[in-house]
Amino acid sequence: MRPITLTTDFGSRDGYVAAMKGVCYSAAPGAMIVDITHEIPPQNLRAAAWVCGSALPYFPPHSVHVIVVDPTVGSDRRPLVAEYRSGFVICPDNGLLGLLTRFMHLGAIREISVDEPVSATFHGRDVFCPCAVRLAKGGRFEEVGPRVIDPVSASFDHPVFTSNGCRCDVVHIDGFGNIILSLHRDDAFKPTLVSVAGRNIPMKRIYADVAKGEMVALWGSTGFLELAMRDGNATLELGLKPGDQVEVQSS
Amino acid sequence: MRPITLTTDFGSRDGYVAAMKGVCYSAAPGAMIVDITHEIPPQNLRAAAWVCGSALPYFPPHSVHVIVVDPTVGSDRRPLVAEYRSGFVICPDNGLLGLLTRFMHLGAIREISVDEPVSATFHGRDVFCPCAVRLAKGGRFEEVGPRVIDPVSASFDHPVFTSNGCRCDVVHIDGFGNIILSLHRDDAFKPTLVSVAGRNIPMKRIYADVAKGEMVALWGSTGFLELAMRDGNATLELGLKPGDQVEVQSS
Amino acid sequence: MRPITLTTDFGSRDGYVAAMKGVCYSAAPGAMIVDITHEIPPQNLRAAAWVCGSALPYFPPHSVHVIVVDPTVGSDRRPLVAEYRSGFVICPDNGLLGLLTRFMHLGAIREISVDEPVSATFHGRDVFCPCAVRLAKGGRFEEVGPRVIDPVSASFDHPVFTSNGCRCDVVHIDGFGNIILSLHRDDAFKPTLVSVAGRNIPMKRIYADVAKGEMVALWGSTGFLELAMRDGNATLELGLKPGDQVEVQSS
Repeated sequence: MRPITLTTDFGSRDGYVAAMKGVCYSAAPGAMIVDITHEIPPQNLRAAAWVCGSALPYFPPHSVHVIVVDPTVGSDRRPLVAEYRSGFVICPDNGLLGLLTRFMHLGAIREISVDEPVSATFHGRDVFCPCAVRLAKGGRFEEVGPRVIDPVSASFDHPVFTSNGCRCDVVHIDGFGNIILSLHRDDAFKPTLVSVAGRNIPMKRIYADVAKGEMVALWGSTGFLELAMRDGNATLELGLKPGDQVEVQSS
Repeated sequence: MRPITLTTDFGSRDGYVAAMKGVCYSAAPGAMIVDITHEIPPQNLRAAAWVCGSALPYFPPHSVHVIVVDPTVGSDRRPLVAEYRSGFVICPDNGLLGLLTRFMHLGAIREISVDEPVSATFHGRDVFCPCAVRLAKGGRFEEVGPRVIDPVSASFDHPVFTSNGCRCDVVHIDGFGNIILSLHRDDAFKPTLVSVAGRNIPMKRIYADVAKGEMVALWGSTGFLELAMRDGNATLELGLKPGDQVEVQSS
Repeated sequence: MRPITLTTDFGSRDGYVAAMKGVCYSAAPGAMIVDITHEIPPQNLRAAAWVCGSALPYFPPHSVHVIVVDPTVGSDRRPLVAEYRSGFVICPDNGLLGLLTRFMHLGAIREISVDEPVSATFHGRDVFCPCAVRLAKGGRFEEVGPRVIDPVSASFDHPVFTSNGCRCDVVHIDGFGNIILSLHRDDAFKPTLVSVAGRNIPMKRIYADVAKGEMVALWGSTGFLELAMRDGNATLELGLKPGDQVEVQSS
């Protein structure tokens, strides 16, 4: 049976995630369910995309990934399934698929056909997980529902190249306070210096290339430019937040 | 083998939950263990009952549910097992079983017979989980220990019907700040308006039936009345906490 | 297949832990992975040692335990594997193995030979987990890499015996605010009283031996001396933190 992963903004204090798992285990006693995280900041699609982009590519290619981060739950936005490698991504039609394409190559998209009455408030439990189990047990993509060619669009801003470097966005702040920027190692631009808040942060290979308490820029573990403080919290020092812009220079 | 679920107020920072799992895997290498949550507010039985009530009914009926939230650990309160569907709920004799009956139909109760010396402080690891594994492996309920007919009693306050509506309790605040009230969809009263803190909150079907930032009342995903703010935090707005009372009106 | 446990300071907000699991499931579809915790305070080796010491001994003896708490990630410290019972502990060479010996008997140590290029920042995903899977699938310890006889040393301070008692360290503050001290039940000294911040805290058997809101000292569930407040938070009351010293007396 295909592994199922779960990503939500439900937090870990309530029984909502467990209810989703219960539905899976009830429909498929041998289900293999893995939590990505349930601590996505509420309704923050960009954070969800970043976190999934840093984790899902490491799972077996035929896995089924459920992502429930949804500002508009209970409205009439469509529940979607997209092909991903030899598996699937399941999420609401709220722009997340577009954001994910910065990190993952997605294939065709279908809308989940729902013919039973479902809860007005908990599609993760009543729509997304039942569909995930059907696919995990070998259900065919074609039977999910009709093709979708016009999902809600959304995307990360790409870096903007300027006369003396490039300007990129803060994509995410991780739990260590490391700041992930929108410039990727495979992009054309090779930075040597990042300027932010009047400070020049040198580009290095690893955290330990600078002294304790000093700032460093490096290619992070998912290939994106990252600002960090050795043995410290770069975000507390620099005061950046997702969406802020940073200047990157090459020598 | 039956699935085992774990619900505690131990938090996720320490090794206590993992020790319980280690005990289970050591006794049953193929154990299937699922976390409900370990973030129940310390010693808060009402929150534990709500969270379990919203999750446990979705698990396979023969599951074994361990719930360790216990103000009196190490005292002489009895360790109990109650029948639930074709499985079991295991918890201390501290009133939790009574609270659970608002959400789940429980059957006969037995006390776990303990004949080895056990830790003075960690019954979850040394009493509850070993019993859960025995039952998960097919152990008979009759062999758990003697019947109990006088568990410690506790219950949620039921809604009180008044001349112009009904008065109900705040049962729980979830991680989104949604406020769950003690009125259930199956109760006789059909609200159209909830009055709280001088505000009249309209009854709707889904969150998206009101504009962003507006308050809404609706039947939540477990069937209880819920107050929410579209794309916001109702609790920050209304200042309610568990145990507070709210007036509900019908037109 | 051997169970694999994961302990990190990565937190649960990001995709880092999930990426490690994805690597394991991709290499071993039937992997059994158990989280100990991912909430170790950032780079706090003493907390990691305590938490692992309270949980790992309860797992099946042949388990493989991965512990990634590492102030010097990406530097040239060696990735290590130590024998533990009939299984293994895998962690960076940063002193953690020395701290663990207060709680667990470790055997021979080897360095993980890394011949592929690895990420400069994420050894948990790219070095430790691949090694864990190889061992979990039955790989031989001898093939991990060369023997290590000089791991970075670190240790907890042992209790110091004085004329009127003994002085011991605060080892850890748990999620309930209980204070774990460095004196073990098997040490020669049998306390009757703990003096801290001008208060005398009596030694009892269980929490419930004192009234609500009172302080109590007892042997905790892992055998170490513990200070607690019945139905309260001892740390908020006493203001102790890891590394502080406490006087213990016998009558």
